[in-house]
Amino acid sequence: MNAKTQLNRKPSRAVFDRNGIYAVLDEGLVAHVGLIAGDTPDVHPIVIPMLYARDGDMLLLHGSPASRLLRNAKGGRDVCVTVTLLDALVLARSGLHHSMNYRSVVVMGCASEITDPDAKVAALDRLVEHTVPGRSKQIRPAHDKEVKATTVLILSLDECSMKVRTGGPIDDLDDLDEPSWAGLVPLGVFIGEPEPDEGSTGDPVPGHVAFWSRGPGQVNGRAG
Amino acid sequence: MNAKTQLNRKPSRAVFDRNGIYAVLDEGLVAHVGLIAGDTPDVHPIVIPMLYARDGDMLLLHGSPASRLLRNAKGGRDVCVTVTLLDALVLARSGLHHSMNYRSVVVMGCASEITDPDAKVAALDRLVEHTVPGRSKQIRPAHDKEVKATTVLILSLDECSMKVRTGGPIDDLDDLDEPSWAGLVPLGVFIGEPEPDEGSTGDPVPGHVAFWSRGPGQVNGRAG
Repeated sequence: MNAKTQLNRKPSRAVFDRNGIYAVLDEGLVAHVGLIAGDTPDVHPIVIPMLYARDGDMLLLHGSPASRLLRNAKGGRDVCVTVTLLDALVLARSGLHHSMNYRSVVVMGCASEITDPDAKVAALDRLVEHTVPGRSKQIRPAHDKEVKATTVLILSLDECSMKVRTGGPIDDLDDLDEPSWAGLVPLGVFIGEPEPDEGSTGDPVPGHVAFWSRGPGQVNGRAG
Repeated sequence: MNAKTQLNRKPSRAVFDRNGIYAVLDEGLVAHVGLIAGDTPDVHPIVIPMLYARDGDMLLLHGSPASRLLRNAKGGRDVCVTVTLLDALVLARSGLHHSMNYRSVVVMGCASEITDPDAKVAALDRLVEHTVPGRSKQIRPAHDKEVKATTVLILSLDECSMKVRTGGPIDDLDDLDEPSWAGLVPLGVFIGEPEPDEGSTGDPVPGHVAFWSRGPGQVNGRAG
């Protein structure tokens, strides 16, 4: 871990377990990617949601070559990629101790572009697989022009850190007699029934899609 | 809308409907806040998940006075606050057209600190109300020292924009005969059964908590 990702407060919430970090990255669906936009001195931060995938100890991002963020990022600017999973609302007996149970990973570094066609195809497959395991084998291979029409960035996971909050509310002792309800409201990802597109061979839903929908109300199905 | 928040690609996904933007901000639970950290030339972006609330045409953020991000932000640095709601996986017949249905709001600007004690108490109540409507009336008022122990920032919503993707996959005509399943997998927020803290008056669950749990599998219950 580099000094940049050292957490400077609430160290009890900091976790430096690489497998735990990888598990959060594998469970998440969307990353929030931060970048410094503009030119000195007229710079400002920008944060954009992006699809991503983990590939071993690297992180993959992709998008249109026209994306300002990707153009900037592949130009060697530092990025910060944050993935957050919400696990519960924490309702305490005082406003101050209200909180959220969450797992959040922050990755910092300088992204580079994947230009080798074979490596790019493998990365694009990995991006599909991250969201829907098994799907890349169920769709036709990408055409050359499609590969060219996508920018893929790769970022090392060397500089990453995780913060986690678990458990119930932590109230002041003086507040334990307060009459207000206190506790957790669990949160997760709701997954609905798949909706076939017109003309799709929709029945039965194939296994790699059904993986996502083992019944309404499945929480974090992809993590199971 | 300021030039900074003009979207420079996929204009069809850009929405400049203020009520739509407010609805996304009101439905979201967590914001990803971006900031430029460090001193020139050794600067880098940082993105942190934070609780937030909308108050009219302003956005409220809060945290510990020890938070590096809040210290920097209240020092007059630009921030970018992004709130993203995921609505569906979009599974297309080609890898290229895989996508996500989402609603994402980006707010840019310079945050200032709320220091007036009464305004600060009102802002803290608003932050609790954003997550759990009705709750601020169910808990004791904040002690003065608690108010002092929290930093509250306020940010104008003047500079904000929204991107939205809805609908099914948009495939190339040549791909419509592909045998792969195509369609949507709806996503939302899963809300579990409330779990009372030890010693809490847990039974029955009060209305303002039950609002959150109208049965397992409730999607985006707070939006209804």
